[in-house]
Amino acid sequence: MKFQPFFAALLVTSSLFAQEHSHQSSRTLVFPDVPGYKTLKTDLHQHTVFSDGNVWPNIRVMEALRDNLDVISLTEHLEYQPHKVDIPHPDRNRSYEIALKEAKDHDLILVHGSEITRQAPIGHNNAIFIEDANKLLVEDAEESFAEAKEQGAFVFWNHPAWYAQSPKGNPILSNFQKERIKKGELHGIEVINTGDYSEESLALAIENNLTIMGTSDIHGLIDWDYVEKGHDRPITLVFAKERSIESLKEALFAGRTVAVFNSLLVGKEENLVPLLNASLQFERAKYINNTSVLEITLKNVTSSDLIFENQMPYTFYSSSPVFTVPAGGTKTLQIKTLEKKADLKIKLKALGAYTAPKEHPIVTWNIRLEE
Amino acid sequence: MKFQPFFAALLVTSSLFAQEHSHQSSRTLVFPDVPGYKTLKTDLHQHTVFSDGNVWPNIRVMEALRDNLDVISLTEHLEYQPHKVDIPHPDRNRSYEIALKEAKDHDLILVHGSEITRQAPIGHNNAIFIEDANKLLVEDAEESFAEAKEQGAFVFWNHPAWYAQSPKGNPILSNFQKERIKKGELHGIEVINTGDYSEESLALAIENNLTIMGTSDIHGLIDWDYVEKGHDRPITLVFAKERSIESLKEALFAGRTVAVFNSLLVGKEENLVPLLNASLQFERAKYINNTSVLEITLKNVTSSDLIFENQMPYTFYSSSPVFTVPAGGTKTLQIKTLEKKADLKIKLKALGAYTAPKEHPIVTWNIRLEE
Amino acid sequence: MKFQPFFAALLVTSSLFAQEHSHQSSRTLVFPDVPGYKTLKTDLHQHTVFSDGNVWPNIRVMEALRDNLDVISLTEHLEYQPHKVDIPHPDRNRSYEIALKEAKDHDLILVHGSEITRQAPIGHNNAIFIEDANKLLVEDAEESFAEAKEQGAFVFWNHPAWYAQSPKGNPILSNFQKERIKKGELHGIEVINTGDYSEESLALAIENNLTIMGTSDIHGLIDWDYVEKGHDRPITLVFAKERSIESLKEALFAGRTVAVFNSLLVGKEENLVPLLNASLQFERAKYINNTSVLEITLKNVTSSDLIFENQMPYTFYSSSPVFTVPAGGTKTLQIKTLEKKADLKIKLKALGAYTAPKEHPIVTWNIRLEE
Amino acid sequence: MKFQPFFAALLVTSSLFAQEHSHQSSRTLVFPDVPGYKTLKTDLHQHTVFSDGNVWPNIRVMEALRDNLDVISLTEHLEYQPHKVDIPHPDRNRSYEIALKEAKDHDLILVHGSEITRQAPIGHNNAIFIEDANKLLVEDAEESFAEAKEQGAFVFWNHPAWYAQSPKGNPILSNFQKERIKKGELHGIEVINTGDYSEESLALAIENNLTIMGTSDIHGLIDWDYVEKGHDRPITLVFAKERSIESLKEALFAGRTVAVFNSLLVGKEENLVPLLNASLQFERAKYINNTSVLEITLKNVTSSDLIFENQMPYTFYSSSPVFTVPAGGTKTLQIKTLEKKADLKIKLKALGAYTAPKEHPIVTWNIRLEE
Repeated sequence: MKFQPFFAALLVTSSLFAQEHSHQSSRTLVFPDVPGYKTLKTDLHQHTVFSDGNVWPNIRVMEALRDNLDVISLTEHLEYQPHKVDIPHPDRNRSYEIALKEAKDHDLILVHGSEITRQAPIGHNNAIFIEDANKLLVEDAEESFAEAKEQGAFVFWNHPAWYAQSPKGNPILSNFQKERIKKGELHGIEVINTGDYSEESLALAIENNLTIMGTSDIHGLIDWDYVEKGHDRPITLVFAKERSIESLKEALFAGRTVAVFNSLLVGKEENLVPLLNASLQFERAKYINNTSVLEITLKNVTSSDLIFENQMPYTFYSSSPVFTVPAGGTKTLQIKTLEKKADLKIKLKALGAYTAPKEHPIVTWNIRLEE
Repeated sequence: MKFQPFFAALLVTSSLFAQEHSHQSSRTLVFPDVPGYKTLKTDLHQHTVFSDGNVWPNIRVMEALRDNLDVISLTEHLEYQPHKVDIPHPDRNRSYEIALKEAKDHDLILVHGSEITRQAPIGHNNAIFIEDANKLLVEDAEESFAEAKEQGAFVFWNHPAWYAQSPKGNPILSNFQKERIKKGELHGIEVINTGDYSEESLALAIENNLTIMGTSDIHGLIDWDYVEKGHDRPITLVFAKERSIESLKEALFAGRTVAVFNSLLVGKEENLVPLLNASLQFERAKYINNTSVLEITLKNVTSSDLIFENQMPYTFYSSSPVFTVPAGGTKTLQIKTLEKKADLKIKLKALGAYTAPKEHPIVTWNIRLEE
Repeated sequence: MKFQPFFAALLVTSSLFAQEHSHQSSRTLVFPDVPGYKTLKTDLHQHTVFSDGNVWPNIRVMEALRDNLDVISLTEHLEYQPHKVDIPHPDRNRSYEIALKEAKDHDLILVHGSEITRQAPIGHNNAIFIEDANKLLVEDAEESFAEAKEQGAFVFWNHPAWYAQSPKGNPILSNFQKERIKKGELHGIEVINTGDYSEESLALAIENNLTIMGTSDIHGLIDWDYVEKGHDRPITLVFAKERSIESLKEALFAGRTVAVFNSLLVGKEENLVPLLNASLQFERAKYINNTSVLEITLKNVTSSDLIFENQMPYTFYSSSPVFTVPAGGTKTLQIKTLEKKADLKIKLKALGAYTAPKEHPIVTWNIRLEE
Repeated sequence: MKFQPFFAALLVTSSLFAQEHSHQSSRTLVFPDVPGYKTLKTDLHQHTVFSDGNVWPNIRVMEALRDNLDVISLTEHLEYQPHKVDIPHPDRNRSYEIALKEAKDHDLILVHGSEITRQAPIGHNNAIFIEDANKLLVEDAEESFAEAKEQGAFVFWNHPAWYAQSPKGNPILSNFQKERIKKGELHGIEVINTGDYSEESLALAIENNLTIMGTSDIHGLIDWDYVEKGHDRPITLVFAKERSIESLKEALFAGRTVAVFNSLLVGKEENLVPLLNASLQFERAKYINNTSVLEITLKNVTSSDLIFENQMPYTFYSSSPVFTVPAGGTKTLQIKTLEKKADLKIKLKALGAYTAPKEHPIVTWNIRLEE
């Protein structure tokens, strides 16, 4: 009996009846490239029915395409397999293989990954760019990390501030992590996971020169756990030389990332400032008739609302010094430059962005004004 | 190693960060009870990873709760198992058992079901209220139906007009179906599946006294395939003596149903007219000062927009004779009754409802007007 | 002392601060031309502070531009001047003159008009295309109508069903109107005023060959009285040879109109059917693979939702036979044509349109299907 | 001939047809009372057809009621009367008298005012709480101010930074203003007008102990100039002992105000801090199980979005330190207090509020936590 053709047709049918009235909320994630690098939008921590998630891997691919991501990784718990009765397959690479089949028809990069999971202080860790997940499934965590290194993996510590493992929400670097870092077996740290931003994890990233990561850690549906609640999923922007797995890997090891959750952007200054620089465009600058009031429009080319505070020696005519340029939208400022100028240095503090705990980057743009 | 407590905690964490700004679109399905019966909202045709669907069974339970359904059934294809490599479990009752665990903490009735799937002319058929799905998995379709009957199942023919099996979209009752009906092995027929409404299937339902069914036949996500496209999922309203599996079964065998898809309502006159009668409430009737113009507000207590055409001997003051009472909303009519009356018979044709192909029910309400 | 330049500048300033985040609800009225005629969107019954309205005439011009109208007339009550203490100007042409100054910079036609106002049975009447409103202000209504005719005016009876003058909402043609019609002094009749549609007025229009009119009769703000309540203002579509006052006048005398209020369209068959014909466009027709199910997209190029009922000998695959094509949107039908056809006659009843009381037009389109 | 009853009826009719589907955007302005004072929402600078505005005074009353204001003043230019040909009435109190008739049926306080208008450096000034506007209409501005004082008026300088009078947008206190202040003839200054916020005007207010004002200066429609553009009109919150004209006057002379435009709040520290204190309520505080992470919900009881930055010695679990509590909405914080505490001092910097140029108030709340 050959069913396949019939069922394939059914799926086509299902989508025919409603090509009009699309109500899909616009959730496309957009960020500009920066000088010298492609900006890749990644979510490198996700689960499916192959560990403790609730969907088949193809759904994760479709969610990523809807969110306009460039890269995802399905990082199933190697050790925690609550659906084992029904999904007893011993090969820990299945989730990756199934997703790969779905992704290959689309412009989405799939990175092979796995989660190495222990109680505190070892905690949860993702190894990505692996070759064979099965080999990581060993009782001794140190051996597991060693094997990940052997496979060339980039490894990051998941949600160190998670209160289930750290009741004060106060992550502390244990000897285990210290040793892993020393041995080159731990390279990154989540400062944003699921919506939880930890200033302490950011401090650890800076002190230990770990790559700053943000991930969704999705188990259910992105729509239910993020979109419906008015959130975008947390992601890591990676500044890569090219849009390829190899470049992505190089960039992650080099620490060229910014973690993003809605309007919160967290990254090292050398990564965050160029991103913010590229995120605003300036349009339609001109002096209002017979005045020294310069009108200029700021366009936000990202999908995050950006909030700024004026740091110029000039005041505004028609805006609070604290203002938001909405995602994909514009804000027109009228700047009292006191005399008509040929050049202007725009200088703004980015209040939604952090280069270190409590530290906002200050960004400048040199604008040439038309006569 | 005991992981469970930690992971349970993680799920709790995940939902903490965003208790504000709920953006969930209101998709609650609501229909009133009718005299003598509870109106149960059911979706009795659904798939999960246990056949060719894309989600774990618990997602179907959560979707149903969001839609305010009373009853669902997971009707996996017995014969079509595209995920068999990963989910080789031989027990065809697993999907039901897993969903039952999720449903038992909620006020949702889960009916045990399965899909018996063949090429045309046998086609696809759902058997629900079964005891053991495994026993239905036999090569000979006639034997499968006989076994379903043996288990006391209610069986309905799925999407008879489906063009993959009926290229003219023109369902024909084959000898197979005729014999099943004669033997009491086929009791219902989908007139709405996935959004496809078939007048021919409705004609078959009436000619053969089959129970009228509407189902989502969902494989992916209700949100993506229906809600985002501006649709509610198709459902079957069942008029049951009580809110119980036994009453539901009695009502389905007795043919007390209305199939609903958005503002389309299809049912036998004896079921559809009482539903429409209960769907409108009349409020704030009063004559405008010194006139014989009666102002009266119609409240639609359902989640479907209801569209009517005036059938009274009186005209309206401020509305087209064709008008919509929006789902959950009101419409105020001003009726020129020519003299002040103590009673009024409101008489409307329901243009979105069908009791037979091209046949709209006419509904009347006797309103007592205050002095 | 010269203030003007400063105040002009102030108005400019006021509009500077908020060029972003425009929240203006899309209320543009759009209707297609019909074969041989331009379709002019008109609202020929409006009031300002120069009678019993609440705004300066320039606001009426701005409202019309926002609604995308082609033509308006300010029809102040000649006899009812509640603001006379403050606006004692004896010249009844002032409202027109002031509006003309505002309109002349825009692509809006302003028709000079006035309202001749008496108690029933004479009632309220608008004379438009007049030369001097002052000459219409005489005690004897018959003289006023005679003068309007002398000036070449097109005159229409306002809201004949208005219950303040007709407590049963039941307009009756008095000897006064009969004589006016006979003398060629009354040419049109409002069947829609403020949102009140009168089937009886439509019957009078047909019996007496009067031009069918729809008007807003606005006194306050279009935004508050219509837009906020989810309505478009009632208008009269006039099918004119050119977009000019002269052509408009010719068309009104010739009776080439359709009155529109939201999705209600009322007109003589010879005007309404061509309008509906031009209102739908057919796109992307093609047969679904290996079937005789034709998929075709209907595009509604008007700003009114259009509701139809199938009148073809073929049924639909995925829609109720009663369906809406939303304003400016599309609806895709799947039509079971039983065999693959090269031509198809689409035949639909327009349920929101009336050519006479309780009479819907049936519209046909001949579609050539691609091989 | 008596028309009035008929026309009154017409107005009633007009509003009948659409009691359902209200689309009015929620624009209600809401601010809490502060300890010892009623918070009155006022807009004390507005125009009608009686100077250079475009609406009859009753529209201003209706707009104020829609915005939930407590107090308005119609401040017609005494000297600038562009509609004089049609509205030649010599009495400059007419606008007030007409509005009073409309307001008296509603719970709206109307303050008698007028605008004294000259070129720079005298500029534009509003005198409110006057008795007779006519007496202010004299050629010599000094005499006009003297007369205002004679009548007991509260006088404020309008838009000092307006670039039409100050091309650098850089207001300077001239000898005229200095003398007026010295003589007790000038008491307030607009720091927000039409959407233009001037830090320099705020500096002048503080240096000269002038009352801080914010006004709409509306000429057209509030809906078109503010609501459609996504703005609330600028207002002045006045902290008065009672809700009466007398208390309002006392409070304005005492300088108890905060100027508000959307999420921008400007006031002296002694007025702004109590307002912010009353603007947030704290709900549902409790420690997450077995952790020292305190979950607490902040409710914003105002109609302005409030943006804050954390100033506590504790970090957050799931929020950026910079966060918004939306107007009328909530934000749940998880605060890592390091140990379980019985009391907590919440300390936040209000980034949308200013007590002086570039100076944000820091607000504290002492929260008692349940055991």
